[in-house]
Amino acid sequence: MTDERDKHDTATVAREELLRLAEAALTAAGASPRHAALSADILVEGDLMGLGTHGVLRVLLYSERLRLGGIAADAEITVERKTPSLALVDGGNGLGPAVAMAGLDAGFEMAAESGLAYVGCRNSNHLGALAPYALKACEKGLVLLCGTNASTTIAPWGGREARLGNNPLCIAAPCPPSAGDGAPHFILDMAMSVAARGKIRKARDEGTAIPEGWAVDAAGRPTSDPVAALEGFLLPFGGHKGSGLSQAVDLLSGVLTGARFLTDISPWTDYPERACGTGHFFLLLDPARLLGAEQYAAAVERFRRLIRETPPADPAQPVQIPGEREQLRRAEALEKGIVLPAGLLAKIEALASGNPL
Amino acid sequence: MTDERDKHDTATVAREELLRLAEAALTAAGASPRHAALSADILVEGDLMGLGTHGVLRVLLYSERLRLGGIAADAEITVERKTPSLALVDGGNGLGPAVAMAGLDAGFEMAAESGLAYVGCRNSNHLGALAPYALKACEKGLVLLCGTNASTTIAPWGGREARLGNNPLCIAAPCPPSAGDGAPHFILDMAMSVAARGKIRKARDEGTAIPEGWAVDAAGRPTSDPVAALEGFLLPFGGHKGSGLSQAVDLLSGVLTGARFLTDISPWTDYPERACGTGHFFLLLDPARLLGAEQYAAAVERFRRLIRETPPADPAQPVQIPGEREQLRRAEALEKGIVLPAGLLAKIEALASGNPL
Repeated sequence: MTDERDKHDTATVAREELLRLAEAALTAAGASPRHAALSADILVEGDLMGLGTHGVLRVLLYSERLRLGGIAADAEITVERKTPSLALVDGGNGLGPAVAMAGLDAGFEMAAESGLAYVGCRNSNHLGALAPYALKACEKGLVLLCGTNASTTIAPWGGREARLGNNPLCIAAPCPPSAGDGAPHFILDMAMSVAARGKIRKARDEGTAIPEGWAVDAAGRPTSDPVAALEGFLLPFGGHKGSGLSQAVDLLSGVLTGARFLTDISPWTDYPERACGTGHFFLLLDPARLLGAEQYAAAVERFRRLIRETPPADPAQPVQIPGEREQLRRAEALEKGIVLPAGLLAKIEALASGNPL
Repeated sequence: MTDERDKHDTATVAREELLRLAEAALTAAGASPRHAALSADILVEGDLMGLGTHGVLRVLLYSERLRLGGIAADAEITVERKTPSLALVDGGNGLGPAVAMAGLDAGFEMAAESGLAYVGCRNSNHLGALAPYALKACEKGLVLLCGTNASTTIAPWGGREARLGNNPLCIAAPCPPSAGDGAPHFILDMAMSVAARGKIRKARDEGTAIPEGWAVDAAGRPTSDPVAALEGFLLPFGGHKGSGLSQAVDLLSGVLTGARFLTDISPWTDYPERACGTGHFFLLLDPARLLGAEQYAAAVERFRRLIRETPPADPAQPVQIPGEREQLRRAEALEKGIVLPAGLLAKIEALASGNPL
């Protein structure tokens, strides 16, 4: 394949093939086979769920940073148990999904013992989307709260300087097996800005204005100019509420884990060759140990039904639970293949063949 | 005192005196001295922090419901440990703050043992504001996540029927003693609507319009008419994000605890004589056990400084951390007394003297 195709061209690829390509691209950049496989899995899950900004697109960035030494190719990841319910992971500046999966796996072990676990990860990097981790927890029947910090793009409420990351928070609750195959888990995965930075980049590239309320310019004034917005900063959703929630996620994923936080996180956009120092957290709870499996199953099924049977504002758009749309997309992509921009697939194929871009 | 004063008249009362009055009013309505004292403490804390809608104003409602049998005056509250880190509280339909404090106290014991605890409360009622519980956790050096469900006032995103409560979520992290007296703890306490229902009631009473975006009418159409808004429902902050977060809080405080949730919660506004079936959760983490006291102290102090030293948009309004304003108000009210509407104080005095309103 070539890189010449129109940027709106798409290509369809099966999950297994995309996994192989993403893994080969990352190992070609120096990552260990195990870390490459863990990272490919999480990124391909992002594409399966339709979260393209957090899918294999990130293989390009991860590969560049591995080559520059910004991400450690030979990272040693260590897990330290503090109590039966508390652990810390030192990611050794490895690939974010490999560090995060070490944390999630430690959390699975601990939750199996005590029913409740918090694992904090430090010395990590971008970990992909949170929803793929949530799906793994739900498939084990566990409730999950997780989050990560990120380099700064948002001003604290009342401030005029970006000191907050667009730190996503994910809260997930499993749908029990008794609900039948394909019944969606509850997976809320949300970042803290009104609109994602990627949408503003897209408006810039297409030469269109952005709605007011998405961002302010470098002087803190409201703007609908995407260029001015990218030089300024994003606005948090709900004003002081989103600003506070972003800080809370950073406390749980940065302060509590021994990671960097707020403006101390090194931005990969400006310094791809430096360690980011990102932190993540995973909080797992076993509802069967708390409430009993049967009572939990009955309650969560009733909850799901009450939400989905809400009379819709638009009769053509039934009310869904958070994450339902992504799980429907995933089922479709597993069957029909993953649709990617053709140029992106070509780049990953080139990297997988050992040809740097 | 009489009830004749202008509704804008205020009265100033010392914390100890207001505690005595609130406790006497609740015992006069039948509550046990212990449950009355726990409830008075939480409600007076609400007033100290300037959260008047969740202060002793609620003594009127709690008293009415105690008299009507909607809240059980002689409630037995039981705590059942499931694992060293998990417990469930059955509130026996008692006063919400008494049930919640049984949960928080159980959480304190468990966090002291294992460093991490989740306690779920069911068969409860309105528990006051969350910030007072957070302050107690912070004073013990513990990180707290807590929340409660509530009767429905919000439509799920894309729906046109109220099926979600305005379920508040609180995330708090203690400022270490080394930061000195009066250094604020991080206490984020937020509900899920763009604007509180109380603000819409105020607009109705004053005959003013409300901003679009606060609420929709009974048919789901945007409205700036407060009367139509009160017949319709509140809009969640951040659209689908606030809607999802409200559901997540209900999963943690309703589904996981064995409480009622969503539309199953009985609204005290319509049926003060019935049990609400409200649920709450408290998740506690000891940062000293996870990270070590010194490392946590250094990190959280740096975090606080980075936020508060953000250049402000308005030089007269320094950037504050969440909960800082409430803690400043509390310090002032402890020194100078609590300012209440004079008519409200007169009503509580009447109840405390054994005279139903």
